[in-house]
Order: sequence, then structure tokens, then C-alpha cells
Amino acid sequence: MQLESYLVKENETLDDLIIGDLKIIQGKESFRFGIDAVILAHFASLRRGDNVIDLGTGSGIIPLLLHTRASDLNIVGLEIQENVAERARRSVLYNDLKNIKIAQGDLRKVAELYPAGSFRRVTSNPPYRPLSSGKLNISEELKVSRHEFACTLGDLTQASSWLLQNKGTFSMIHRAERLAEIFILFKSYSLEIKRLRFVHSFREKEAKLVLIEAVKGGGQGLKVEKPLVLYEGSGSYSTEILELYNKD
Amino acid sequence: MQLESYLVKENETLDDLIIGDLKIIQGKESFRFGIDAVILAHFASLRRGDNVIDLGTGSGIIPLLLHTRASDLNIVGLEIQENVAERARRSVLYNDLKNIKIAQGDLRKVAELYPAGSFRRVTSNPPYRPLSSGKLNISEELKVSRHEFACTLGDLTQASSWLLQNKGTFSMIHRAERLAEIFILFKSYSLEIKRLRFVHSFREKEAKLVLIEAVKGGGQGLKVEKPLVLYEGSGSYSTEILELYNKD
Repeated sequence: MQLESYLVKENETLDDLIIGDLKIIQGKESFRFGIDAVILAHFASLRRGDNVIDLGTGSGIIPLLLHTRASDLNIVGLEIQENVAERARRSVLYNDLKNIKIAQGDLRKVAELYPAGSFRRVTSNPPYRPLSSGKLNISEELKVSRHEFACTLGDLTQASSWLLQNKGTFSMIHRAERLAEIFILFKSYSLEIKRLRFVHSFREKEAKLVLIEAVKGGGQGLKVEKPLVLYEGSGSYSTEILELYNKD
Repeated sequence: MQLESYLVKENETLDDLIIGDLKIIQGKESFRFGIDAVILAHFASLRRGDNVIDLGTGSGIIPLLLHTRASDLNIVGLEIQENVAERARRSVLYNDLKNIKIAQGDLRKVAELYPAGSFRRVTSNPPYRPLSSGKLNISEELKVSRHEFACTLGDLTQASSWLLQNKGTFSMIHRAERLAEIFILFKSYSLEIKRLRFVHSFREKEAKLVLIEAVKGGGQGLKVEKPLVLYEGSGSYSTEILELYNKD
């Protein structure tokens, strides 16, 4: 409680991650983490000791979740908005995680920030919508989280390709309807898609989201994994999702 | 029985389609139709009165199955192997279907056979494997059915694009692992993928096959439909597959 009063501001909440006994500070009117971040952090290929960068890390949710999978990772969360990065830093501080660094920076200028091939893993839960779609009369922070305001899918793909060492992996979640664009962009940046997992809200519904993993300079051979179903008939979480939360 | 003795040769069998009370003549040592053709014929978008061409029709299974969905279609089955085309013609004759024509021809020379934009629908259950993979010490007929011996995926895509009128649809089934290649090829021939449905043998298994539908000159907006699961836990057909067979 002592620490909380220093680290959590008035317009923020301190929320339980449920997974791994961690907590996260979120702005009351900011983009708040959802199931997308949880399933992406679970989906990404990881090995002990990997160095990872999460692009557009926002509240730092993905670095925190990755840490619950392997505590000896070296993780950077890159965030363009200084106030958001600062808040993520306080979450890291609250959880006392010395292996997570939050950096403020623009992924469109990533070549000025890190040498090529600096990371073995890149993750991202990017804004899903192009600038042209949807209402934009929302806060700057929400706009950057939801729309391709500060970076497009092309910018993100280019940054990932730069940051990854050969055979390193880029794990992302995005809207399934943008898959054609993703295949073509990834190909043009030498990112070979090796794993896809479609996310269905219910078993009998179309997939709105897809988990994607590409290997930098990888060979052909795509695996389409079993569908990920979020909810059961009654609307409660599916067994697989519940198991994610009950791992520890 | 009388008709059968005239139309079915010694090395052939006359098989029940189950669906629609039709029968099909198949070579005993040929590629015999499987669930792939059945689910593709069910998946393809169709309207009454459409003209359709099935590329690499083999035994003519897909034209026969499409006919069970709408009896006023005009369907061409194009097959490169003369002996296979001749057998398919006998199946059409046996079922007395005047709206199905089987044509012998090479889809790589399709521009010499049909004017551009001649069809509203193109379907294909093409050979799944590149020439370089798998055993090739099998009969000529099997080789052409299974491997990209007489046409590659590129040849097929080009032919479909030529044959389709604007906004016409190309429906295909292929191996899910070749999806990256398919997206890139289709894009280059103005075929926009609008529907995908992944085919899982069992609910908890990866998808080996995918049903794909593209629109010639279509706009963006891909829909990933609910997964198609072939078998239930015990190994019997799933409810959805059984319903396909019990429609009539």
C-alpha cells in the first residue's frame, strides 16, 4: 500500500494480472489490456535467456506476461508516448523486475535506436485499424493505441525485420481480415510466416483475430494450429483460456 | 445394369456419390475422390444459372457434386488427360446430365480455348504437391492428379484469372502450408481472397487443408469462417459432414 501510493496516480488503477502474481498500472481512460495481450504472450515462441523487444508496449502488459513464462528473459518494451512509457516504467518498478526496460522511442526510427539484428524475439499487439477507419474523436492516447496513427503495419514490419537476428521470431496478433496484407508485407521484409492460430470468440463463429509468428529469413512451411476458442456456449471462458490464468 | 455394362470398363468401378443419387465411374488404380472434393463443392459460392468451369476435373466429381446443389448450372469440366476426360464423359452420360460438358484441354493454354471472362465461377481441387516432393514412381494418371506435373499453382491461378469475369469467384481447396504462396500468387493475378475456411481432421488438430475463395478484382475484406472439423473424437464423421451427405 505504501509503494502503491507513490507509484499509482489519481487517474490510474492498479490492476491484478491474475497470471504470475503481478500487478499493472493502467490509465482509467486509456487502452486497457485485454485477452489479446494474454493470448499473444502465451503464443510467442520463447527460450530461456532470450532477448525480446515488444513494439508499442503501451502499459507494458506484454513484457510483464512474458516474464511470467521465463524469468531470465531480457525484455525491452518500446513505446512512443512518453507519458505512457513513464507509466509502464512505474509498473515495472512496482513489480521489481530488473530484467524489463521500458524505452521511449519511435519504431519508425528504430535503426537509430538499435543495431540491426539486436534481438532474438520481437512481439507486438499493434493498433488494429487503419487511420481511415472508425471514429477519431477520442483521446490522443487511445488513438495511438487503436489506430495506425503513430505507425502503420508496414512501419511495424520493417522495424521487426531490422531488429531481428537471422532465424529470430516476430510474434504478433492482428485482425484476421488483414491477413492478405500481412502475408505480402512480411514476405517483402524476409519474414516467413511459420505459425498461424486463428482466434474465434465461439467455436461456431468466424475468426476475428489471428496469432501470427514469422521467422526472419525462414524457409517455407506454414503450420495452421488448432483454433483458439475464447468462450464456451454460455459465454464463460473456454477451458484453454482458464488454464492460461491458472498456470501458477 | 444394362447401361452400366456398356459404360463401365473392366478396370473401373461404378461408385455411389451418396449425395444427390448420382453415380461416378472411377479407375481402380486412379486417384479416387475423397472428402476434399465434397467439401469444396459445398463451400463454393453458387447462384442458379451460373456458368462454372472446374479446372483439372479428373473423374468429374466436382461438376457432379455442384449439379446436386443447383440443377440449372452450366458446367464445364476441363481435364488434360484424354483417357481421364473420356471416363468423366461416361459418368456424365450415365447420370444423363446434359448441363455438364467434359472438355479435354491444357489449362496452361486456356486463352486458346476460351475468351477472357467466359465464366462466373471457377473451381479446382488441384494437385497438392510440388513436383520436387514425394515419390514419383507411380502411374502417369496418379502423378498428374497428385503432383504439379501438368500444371503448377501459378498456372492454375493464371488460368482462373483469365477465365473469370469481373467479380466472379475462384473456389479452391489446397494444403494450408502453402497459404503464403497462395496469397502472393492470387494478389498478382487480381484475385482477392475473401473467404478462408480451415479444415481440421479433429477439433484439436492443426489444419492440413484450407478452402479458399477469391473474387476477381474484388476489394479488401477477408472473412475467416468457423473451422471445418471432419471427424469427432471416436473417428466418425462430424455432424457437419454427415449433414452434407444427408441433404437429399
